[in-house]
Amino acid sequence: MSSVNQNPIPIYLISPSGAIAPDAPVQSAIAQLEQAGFSPRLDRAALRMRQRFAGSDTDRAAAFARAASQDARIVMITRGGYGMTRLLPLLDYRALARSGKQWVGLSDFTAFQLAMLARARAVTWAGPALMDDFAIEPDQELDDITLGTFCEAMDGRLEAVGFRCSGASGVEARGTLWGGNLSIVCSLLGTPYFPKVDGGILFLEDVNEHPYRIERMLTQLLHAGVLDRQKAILCGYFNRYKLSPNDRGFDMPAVLKWLRAQTRTPIITGLPFGHASPKLTLPHGAQVALATEGRTCYLILDEHHSHHDH
Amino acid sequence: MSSVNQNPIPIYLISPSGAIAPDAPVQSAIAQLEQAGFSPRLDRAALRMRQRFAGSDTDRAAAFARAASQDARIVMITRGGYGMTRLLPLLDYRALARSGKQWVGLSDFTAFQLAMLARARAVTWAGPALMDDFAIEPDQELDDITLGTFCEAMDGRLEAVGFRCSGASGVEARGTLWGGNLSIVCSLLGTPYFPKVDGGILFLEDVNEHPYRIERMLTQLLHAGVLDRQKAILCGYFNRYKLSPNDRGFDMPAVLKWLRAQTRTPIITGLPFGHASPKLTLPHGAQVALATEGRTCYLILDEHHSHHDH
Repeated sequence: MSSVNQNPIPIYLISPSGAIAPDAPVQSAIAQLEQAGFSPRLDRAALRMRQRFAGSDTDRAAAFARAASQDARIVMITRGGYGMTRLLPLLDYRALARSGKQWVGLSDFTAFQLAMLARARAVTWAGPALMDDFAIEPDQELDDITLGTFCEAMDGRLEAVGFRCSGASGVEARGTLWGGNLSIVCSLLGTPYFPKVDGGILFLEDVNEHPYRIERMLTQLLHAGVLDRQKAILCGYFNRYKLSPNDRGFDMPAVLKWLRAQTRTPIITGLPFGHASPKLTLPHGAQVALATEGRTCYLILDEHHSHHDH
Repeated sequence: MSSVNQNPIPIYLISPSGAIAPDAPVQSAIAQLEQAGFSPRLDRAALRMRQRFAGSDTDRAAAFARAASQDARIVMITRGGYGMTRLLPLLDYRALARSGKQWVGLSDFTAFQLAMLARARAVTWAGPALMDDFAIEPDQELDDITLGTFCEAMDGRLEAVGFRCSGASGVEARGTLWGGNLSIVCSLLGTPYFPKVDGGILFLEDVNEHPYRIERMLTQLLHAGVLDRQKAILCGYFNRYKLSPNDRGFDMPAVLKWLRAQTRTPIITGLPFGHASPKLTLPHGAQVALATEGRTCYLILDEHHSHHDH
């Protein structure tokens, strides 16, 4: 997978949220993408800086239109951070959906993905970001699973993924796969950018958030009726938080135990998605089938959500 | 104000959220309340601990019913923290409203105050908490304004407050005063506990939240249409956050500047409310009048929201 492809696949890179730090290893991340068989190109505003953002709101919103009109089929974000929700009223979701691009990213980009589903019923891709997954040391290897599922997803060959799970066995469900970063999912509740998904499969991850904040957000989704309306909740990585002595045993397992007592929707942990490796590339907004058998969870993706359909 | 009252006013103390740490100066806080002319009594579960909470959900919910049925007219929380949203489906809001108690608190207690307004159209009091405002060293003095407005509010004598403000002069508005802790306000959006207030005066504060999080939350209220539907936004303290070099000038003034460009609702800063002193005691859910004259903001409270009406 790390051999140079004779026909490299173009990727257009945009920065819709936080600025890339001046000393960040952008060039080595781009080199890694090239080595993996891609031909990456940075949007002209991708390295801008304005306060903590990658350029002004207008700059960042305009990059979406530029991405939609250029040739590369894949549009990937450089990084997350904060800033996407500011842009939500500025985007033409139907035009962006009509462009047929495969929009890829995660974290703050969840806001775009939810809005694309809510406003244009469009499928996007929850997957890697340039600086999160490709900015590694030259002597390091890219994660095989991350790169492999990304490549397969992008060219329509990803039909199913399986992973070690726990929390619910014997679950069988079919529905819209949606979600992403929990903080962002909750920050769209009550707005026109929150998709109405009944009978869906909601996947969630978060980083740097104490379990009490995670629980408060899950409680919001619970009280809003969102959790009860899903067929399954899939938990990705919840990591990089710090417990305190005052928690006295309150931790992520305690959060999940409490939540399971509040909803009948099965809560399955172990999804390889979030701010860590390996990271699957998943079709956000697509119909999928889910099955758990013992400690393995399978997600079966419908092939017609590949780019060939757009 | 610090002299002992011959007829001390009873206050019943409950802990609906976080546990009081075993080494916290509860007794000296109670002594301060006594010295200020009150007769405080701790609910029997107020010092419980279960994980990070002041007892189980059942314990903490039951304390509301005990508070409603005892004699003291004033019910104050010991502290905030986290845990109130877990209790929201367990409370009988109409019964609690009928009790005629003056419920006082802030921070995580905002969830109760919003739910009381949403479910029972009840007025509660945004004001001090035992461990936030009365746990001071024996040789220290309680803050005069905090204590003075609290005492006046509790016995129905608080008719108006004035404070130094900025951001909008010549504003005149009349409407429901509501809000509190921004994180909690946002964490109820989309749930049945979020009150529908049109033409209101929304006050907000938060603590330990980076301006990007504050902006993300304000953006949620903006996109949900909440800000545009208010007659004024009153900003209390936003404090104890830490900026980073990557913010490059993004700070609270930048957040407010951006927000003012997004909504026509006047945004007024300087409200003495939140996680600092002085702290006003304000009738949450009551009709109030607001006027700014130059750099002074007046809030005129309707007298009929004192306890005499209940």
